[in-house]
Amino acid sequence: MKTLLLKKEEVSRLICVSEVICTVEEAYKAFNSDQVEQPDYIGIHLPSPRGEIDFKVGYDKANEVISMKASSGGFINNPTAHGLPSGMGTILLLDARSCALICVMDGSLITGLRTGASGAVSVKALARKNAKKITSIGTGNQARMQIRMINETMKIEEIHAWDRNPHTLSKYKTDIESEFGIPVIMANSKKEAVEQADILITTTRGKGSLVEPEWVKPGTHIVAIGTDQQGKQELGPEIFRNAKVVVDSIAQCTEKGETWHPLNKNIITKDDIHGEIGEILLGKKPGRENDDEVTIFDSTGMAIQDNVTSIKIYRNAIERDIGTFFEFFE
Amino acid sequence: MKTLLLKKEEVSRLICVSEVICTVEEAYKAFNSDQVEQPDYIGIHLPSPRGEIDFKVGYDKANEVISMKASSGGFINNPTAHGLPSGMGTILLLDARSCALICVMDGSLITGLRTGASGAVSVKALARKNAKKITSIGTGNQARMQIRMINETMKIEEIHAWDRNPHTLSKYKTDIESEFGIPVIMANSKKEAVEQADILITTTRGKGSLVEPEWVKPGTHIVAIGTDQQGKQELGPEIFRNAKVVVDSIAQCTEKGETWHPLNKNIITKDDIHGEIGEILLGKKPGRENDDEVTIFDSTGMAIQDNVTSIKIYRNAIERDIGTFFEFFE
Repeated sequence: MKTLLLKKEEVSRLICVSEVICTVEEAYKAFNSDQVEQPDYIGIHLPSPRGEIDFKVGYDKANEVISMKASSGGFINNPTAHGLPSGMGTILLLDARSCALICVMDGSLITGLRTGASGAVSVKALARKNAKKITSIGTGNQARMQIRMINETMKIEEIHAWDRNPHTLSKYKTDIESEFGIPVIMANSKKEAVEQADILITTTRGKGSLVEPEWVKPGTHIVAIGTDQQGKQELGPEIFRNAKVVVDSIAQCTEKGETWHPLNKNIITKDDIHGEIGEILLGKKPGRENDDEVTIFDSTGMAIQDNVTSIKIYRNAIERDIGTFFEFFE
Repeated sequence: MKTLLLKKEEVSRLICVSEVICTVEEAYKAFNSDQVEQPDYIGIHLPSPRGEIDFKVGYDKANEVISMKASSGGFINNPTAHGLPSGMGTILLLDARSCALICVMDGSLITGLRTGASGAVSVKALARKNAKKITSIGTGNQARMQIRMINETMKIEEIHAWDRNPHTLSKYKTDIESEFGIPVIMANSKKEAVEQADILITTTRGKGSLVEPEWVKPGTHIVAIGTDQQGKQELGPEIFRNAKVVVDSIAQCTEKGETWHPLNKNIITKDDIHGEIGEILLGKKPGRENDDEVTIFDSTGMAIQDNVTSIKIYRNAIERDIGTFFEFFE
């Protein structure tokens, strides 16, 4: 039995931005078509200053592939102590017809890619058609990835950015302007940045101050990325009161997404959640219905996004004859 | 970063029976010394005639290694439809200090080995010192493995075996007699076999008729292997009423082990469980206290057994320079 091994560098060559947007869209649709089994994930928190490692399993019935992603993050001493990145990942793909191991690939890039794509998919489904200005609260790797992906789906005229750390902010401006030629305006305050937004993206990891409801103008689409577990928060919960709330997974977002906060404060009930994004993509529920509503997309990240994206990478590898085969048994 | 790849054939060369008994003993002790984190496992049941795949994660704090075993079984059409075994396995080992992937090894052999060793460890701790006769209810692979392992820990004078299928039974007799030179008596009934037992081993996968309490003579040690999930059962629950009940994990055995049945029927309460085997191995609780008591060891199988056993395999591989290194990233 042959297993394909794919290195990080090969993975990066094997998938492009527009393909990830397609695979994530496909994943969301599959999730809302009873084509997905996605059990609760396993997480192990190591003692500080180490981070966490998660094991996420997804079964995609349409493709008949089971994926398992082991993904670590927050090992802040790794670069100095071990010469390793602070987070790493490995993905196993199993043919669900036999449970044969068909692929072991480096999984460091996939989380970033599929998370970036989730924002772009939501922009297509929920942002105003005349949206031009993006506000980025948070200017780290995922903030850049969001721009890279959203830039595929619309014409971004300018980006208003804010970060607690002025150096990070200024680096972001340089990088984005040189990579995409989109002007970046460094805001003096979070408020100043948010007030400009047609699309507001939050990627701060949810530990800082909140975006206040009065800063959000009508018609804004909010992409809430940074909150994916209890204890994190980026948006003032009152923002949810009159917004159209769309989530990747109701089960996940009500438990550990941004949506948990307004639910916990009784600002909204579960019934006020408009739906899951897959339902909108499948046409089961409407997306944006007018130019004034505030839409929120709460993304906690799902195993099926890793699954469908890594299947695409695997198939591209087979087609292009990239990677190394290894026989774990004969 | 270099990851060691180990094939099935290499794994089989890298560990011997006595080492597995030691690693499983070490695993049980670690489990009862707060050295282990072992979250609930993830299981996916595929539609019939396919089987199941489980993902089990264990963190061994003493060795600072996290293991993940993906293990499938019950894919009865694999040999004919895909030319593959009905069950396969893959183990990842991660250095818990950085979460670097240090090893990917074939995991098909480990479940069988560590399960076999669990019986042997329990025999050392709980069987009568003058035990000579083993009864084997079930004569499949795991029944053979139990003999292989227990044979390391005591002198087996004869084996009384029973199986629903007379062909399987007769094959077992031939194999065991030729491999170990231990005479195997093929019983005419389950009752006839059980009545002979100093040590009774049940490995039937828990779908057939039960061992009745009146067949079990005083002083018998029972190794209950076949029941590891709801819906399986091998022992009449009344056997538990006056027995010394030892489990691998109270959490697991009361939920899906043989012990669930007498609890469910109120024949015993949780307080009647004598303890976990690690407590006995550590001297925190007594093992067998006289030659008349019936002892039961209920084994559901724990991730930490896979973990410690695969660490040993990995270390042996490094020491003996066996395996193939692969760089998933540079």
